[in-house]
Amino acid sequence: MRILGIDPGLRRTGFGVIDAAGMRISYVASGTIVVPSDLPLQERLKVILDSIREVVDTYSPTESALEKVFVNTNPSSTLLLGQARGAAMCALADRHLDVTEYTALQIKKAVVGNGHAQKEQVQHMVQRLLTLNSLPAPDSADALACAICHAHAAPLAGRLAGQGVSMARRGRTRLRAGRLID
Amino acid sequence: MRILGIDPGLRRTGFGVIDAAGMRISYVASGTIVVPSDLPLQERLKVILDSIREVVDTYSPTESALEKVFVNTNPSSTLLLGQARGAAMCALADRHLDVTEYTALQIKKAVVGNGHAQKEQVQHMVQRLLTLNSLPAPDSADALACAICHAHAAPLAGRLAGQGVSMARRGRTRLRAGRLID
Repeated sequence: MRILGIDPGLRRTGFGVIDAAGMRISYVASGTIVVPSDLPLQERLKVILDSIREVVDTYSPTESALEKVFVNTNPSSTLLLGQARGAAMCALADRHLDVTEYTALQIKKAVVGNGHAQKEQVQHMVQRLLTLNSLPAPDSADALACAICHAHAAPLAGRLAGQGVSMARRGRTRLRAGRLID
Repeated sequence: MRILGIDPGLRRTGFGVIDAAGMRISYVASGTIVVPSDLPLQERLKVILDSIREVVDTYSPTESALEKVFVNTNPSSTLLLGQARGAAMCALADRHLDVTEYTALQIKKAVVGNGHAQKEQVQHMVQRLLTLNSLPAPDSADALACAICHAHAAPLAGRLAGQGVSMARRGRTRLRAGRLID
């Protein structure tokens, strides 16, 4: 199982790729997509779309995990963030990658053991769990943490499903085309 | 000039295509992309992405216009709407189509002459301006109205630019790839 974790944002989108075999995980790649803020919105979204497709084509993940964004109280910021998130999900959908979403609380709990951990604690635990030589950058660390969270959650969901316990997992149905009516 | 107008939404996305030569406009096509609401979010976005790309491939517009969405006071709705809008913009960007955005007020003013016109008035004026045999569906009418608004605004912007009057138009710079850093 090769997992791509993504922490989406309009200015900076972090990504992290790990391999997972049971409970053993190992680092593959990570980085931050920095979107020039002077570009028109459409081109900023295209940078996210193209960059994530490039990451998928380069590292061939088999699963993907996305951090559920914090819904801002400022409606304009929320709309911008939604658009960036939409671009990230489109890139993954375009490459036929299933996405599972996790809240920041779930991710921190999975990685640090405490849902209210500080950003620095997440960076340190990601470095330790993946035996990295140096501290990962904040956006990369968040994306890697998201991938680690999925590595821990996915086998559990599979085992529970095997025991007949149903879990609210993302459907795997093939995409049905949208109906065009008028 | 062939214009594709889009009224984006997560449940229903309207589209309308018109030809414009100076002030003369004519109807080409319109419709509503209905997204099954029982699909996971990622697949709903993929329906919008694929359907708009299909519309572009079918009708080969040279310009596109998007209705600026109403920012809801409910942050979750705003986030969902933003994601749908991101998917629509990604589809257009993917087909190298420039997008100009117009507020509902600008569109109603351009089509009905009154920024606070009712939905039915917009439908009736769109039918009259494009000499349609029947009333267009509400989502199609909004998308066609958006395209008509662009047909009126674009030549004006061009003429003003020719006279050295600068207008805040969408940049036409080629897309620069996002920098990947870490």
